[in-house]
Amino acid sequence: MYAPPRSSLLETLVDRLAGLPSIGRKSAQRLAYHILAAPLEEVEALSDSLLNARRSVRPCALCGNHAEEERCALCRNPRRDAAQVCVVERPSDVAAFERLGTYRGLYHVLGGTLSPLDGVGPAELNLASLFTREGVEEIILALGTHAEGEATSTYIVHRLQGRPLRITRLARGLPAGSDLEFVDELTMKRALDGRVDLGTK
Amino acid sequence: MYAPPRSSLLETLVDRLAGLPSIGRKSAQRLAYHILAAPLEEVEALSDSLLNARRSVRPCALCGNHAEEERCALCRNPRRDAAQVCVVERPSDVAAFERLGTYRGLYHVLGGTLSPLDGVGPAELNLASLFTREGVEEIILALGTHAEGEATSTYIVHRLQGRPLRITRLARGLPAGSDLEFVDELTMKRALDGRVDLGTK
Repeated sequence: MYAPPRSSLLETLVDRLAGLPSIGRKSAQRLAYHILAAPLEEVEALSDSLLNARRSVRPCALCGNHAEEERCALCRNPRRDAAQVCVVERPSDVAAFERLGTYRGLYHVLGGTLSPLDGVGPAELNLASLFTREGVEEIILALGTHAEGEATSTYIVHRLQGRPLRITRLARGLPAGSDLEFVDELTMKRALDGRVDLGTK
Repeated sequence: MYAPPRSSLLETLVDRLAGLPSIGRKSAQRLAYHILAAPLEEVEALSDSLLNARRSVRPCALCGNHAEEERCALCRNPRRDAAQVCVVERPSDVAAFERLGTYRGLYHVLGGTLSPLDGVGPAELNLASLFTREGVEEIILALGTHAEGEATSTYIVHRLQGRPLRITRLARGLPAGSDLEFVDELTMKRALDGRVDLGTK
């Protein structure tokens, strides 16, 4: 090697971009070259947006979702049904439900699932505030269907035992548009166990 | 829809990230959530790095590669051979050559290839300065092997006709590790035309 092949500011930028999740070295390089060629205002806007979002967005005091004020836009909305609480792992799950446009209740964002092997116990999650939420009539468990999600649901059901609450969880079965040939065995088994009567005889 | 599903600063950040090349809406969302959860110093460093690179990196006055001063680190290096100039499309091509660690000459970065249909003529590329570069003894054409790359090479050869210069281009043939079954016809044809005598008989 006869000389540093690239300028050091560029090198630094590539390193930083490559440090982001799911951005490999090659993508980081491509992004950096894009940044160098982009209009200055565009780069300034991106740079500001990163800082503003990081500095101003924090967990909602009630549900744990992303918020710019003490409570998130959903918890502040008087038209949402505060008696119905959908328990999810992450803010991105809230976004997924909201895209449906049909759910009128509120959320509770745990921030993950119980995973003792990774050092995630009940205290590491946004769980205590779930058990003290007031005016709740139904808790809808909407956690992932992996082992940690199931364990977390079981824990929540156990902790809420005896409360005058309806506790539900999302249905299990075949995903839309699936070809039976490619459906895994556990999904198939759950779809069979949960089969629905169509009313014939 | 009963409420804006996400905070607006977050929404803005997702929009900005999704505006970058090869980052879809889902990746942008994942990146934005990562930013919100990352240490503030990390986000500040990324934000600064974007601005610093964009503001300080500019084309090298001699070769057009990325530079932080008037000339890039390669052109300033007295140990590089200024008589040999490798003509490439983009700064990323320079980086690719430098990774080899074996090339001792300099570069000339065109900024693209001739493409009349897209409105890219000779004036849109960093070409004029190539024809006036002094002390050059060999020009190595290392443009892409697509039609625009070939046309650009032809144009350069034509423009340099009569000059006391050696003009070369990269070899064409089978890429390393290729299975003949999967090599395209044009590559195969070029590999056959350019076959090398191994000295038998």
